[in-house]
Amino acid sequence: MSIPRLHLDEDLREGAEVEAAPGQAHHLGTVLRRGPGDAVRLFNARDGEHEAAIAFLRKDRARFAIGPRRRDPAPEPELRLLVAALKRDPMDWLVEKATELGATRIQPVLTRRTVAERANAQRLSAIARAAAEQCERLSVPAVEEAAPLHRVLDAWDGTKLVVAMERSAAPPLREAVAGLASPLALLVGPEGGFEGAELDDLRRRAFVVPAALGPRILRAETAAVAGLAALQALVGDWTEAPGPDRLRAGATRG
Amino acid sequence: MSIPRLHLDEDLREGAEVEAAPGQAHHLGTVLRRGPGDAVRLFNARDGEHEAAIAFLRKDRARFAIGPRRRDPAPEPELRLLVAALKRDPMDWLVEKATELGATRIQPVLTRRTVAERANAQRLSAIARAAAEQCERLSVPAVEEAAPLHRVLDAWDGTKLVVAMERSAAPPLREAVAGLASPLALLVGPEGGFEGAELDDLRRRAFVVPAALGPRILRAETAAVAGLAALQALVGDWTEAPGPDRLRAGATRG
Repeated sequence: MSIPRLHLDEDLREGAEVEAAPGQAHHLGTVLRRGPGDAVRLFNARDGEHEAAIAFLRKDRARFAIGPRRRDPAPEPELRLLVAALKRDPMDWLVEKATELGATRIQPVLTRRTVAERANAQRLSAIARAAAEQCERLSVPAVEEAAPLHRVLDAWDGTKLVVAMERSAAPPLREAVAGLASPLALLVGPEGGFEGAELDDLRRRAFVVPAALGPRILRAETAAVAGLAALQALVGDWTEAPGPDRLRAGATRG
Repeated sequence: MSIPRLHLDEDLREGAEVEAAPGQAHHLGTVLRRGPGDAVRLFNARDGEHEAAIAFLRKDRARFAIGPRRRDPAPEPELRLLVAALKRDPMDWLVEKATELGATRIQPVLTRRTVAERANAQRLSAIARAAAEQCERLSVPAVEEAAPLHRVLDAWDGTKLVVAMERSAAPPLREAVAGLASPLALLVGPEGGFEGAELDDLRRRAFVVPAALGPRILRAETAAVAGLAALQALVGDWTEAPGPDRLRAGATRG
C-alpha cells in the first residue's frame, strides 16, 4: 500500500506529536483502513514534508508522531488563476487540474456573462487539498470566494495578468509572454467572452497582457487548464531541469 | 438562438440537398427545437463550412438545402494523441478537451499498467464530433479502438512522438520540442507510468522524443490535456497569428 500523503498546516518538527486536521481521522481509518503505527507523510509549504506515523486513531480524532524531514521546503513560483465562476462540475474539475498544474491561488470572478453566481470555496478548497496531496506538491492553492472582476482588478498588486482573448484581438500566447517570469496570473472569461466594456477596462490596465489561445473556441475550464499548462511550459516551472534531489539522504522513496 | 453547426461527411455543394447523418434529425427537432426553414451550418474538413437550411425534418430523418460556403477548407496541422486507456469518465473528458485543443487523431493504447482494457470508440467518436461542432474546427478527430502500445509503435510511420516521462528521465518539454513542427504526436502513459521494459523499448525508437511535463505527478488525463496545450502553445497552431479572415465576403458572423 502506498503511504498516504497529508497536508497539515501545523509546525512539523521531528519528535513532536500533532493533531490531525478535521476529516483526516475518518479518511485514514475508514477510507484508507490504516491504524496506529502505520506510516503517513505530512507536508506543508513552510516545513516541507516529514515522515510520520499514526500515534492515535479514533473515528473522529487522530494524532501523528512526526519523524524526520524527507523533503525540504522550496519556493514555488507564483501562478494565480482568475476564472469566471462556472457551474459545479466544470469548476470542480478545473480546481483539481489547476492544482496539478501548480496554480498557487484560484480566484473565481463574476463578470457580466458568468453563468454561476458563487463558488463554494470550502468544497473547492477540499478538492484542491486532495489534489495537492496526490500530485506531490508542498503547497495547497488558496481558493477564494467569488468576487466581481472589477473589484479584484481594482485591488490588484500589479502582477502581470495574462488575459485570454479571441485570436483576432491579441498576439499568440508564446509571443505575449516571451521574457515574462513568475509571478504571473491568468484570467479566463466566461463562455461568450467578456463584454466590450470589460475588454476596454482590461486593456487600460498596465499589468494586463492580452494573449490568444489558438484558433478554436474553448470552454472556460478548458481555456483555464490549457492556459495554465501552456504558461508553465513556456515560462513556468515546466521549463526547469530537476534540481539536486530534494529528498534528503536516507529518505525512502515511493 | 445560435445557428447549429453540424459535421456532415458528405459532399457539400451550394444548391444541392443532402441527407442528415443518423441522430441529427432527433438532435435538431427534439433537442434544439428547430424546424424546416431554420438555418444550420454544415462542415467537414474537405469542403469547409456552408450555410444551409433544414429542408425536411421528421423524428428520424432530415434533409438540408445547402447554401453558400462561408468558410474555406484549410489544412490542419497533424497532432496525434496516444494515451493509455482510461476509465470512462476521464476518457470522455479527455476526448472532449483534446478535440478543443486540436488533436487530429486519438489512439487509446494498452500498456502493462493500463487500468482499462478497451475504449468505446463509437461513443468517444460521438463526443469528439460534438466537441468539434462546438469549438468551430472543420475536422473531427478520428478515435481509434484501443490497441497494444507495442503494436501501434511497430506500425508507426516515423512521426515525431513526444513521450511524457518523469522529470528525472527527460528534458523539459520546451527544450525537447525546440525546432520541431507538425506532424507531431504525444504519448501519455498510465498512472504509475511505463514499466522499465516499455521505457527501454521507447527509448530505442528513433522517432521518440522524451519530454518532462513539470515537477508534479499528473493524472493521465491531465498530462494528455496539458501536454497537448503545451505543444500547441510551443510549436503548434496556438503560435499562428490569425491569417486572412477565412470567412468569405458576405458570410454572416455568429
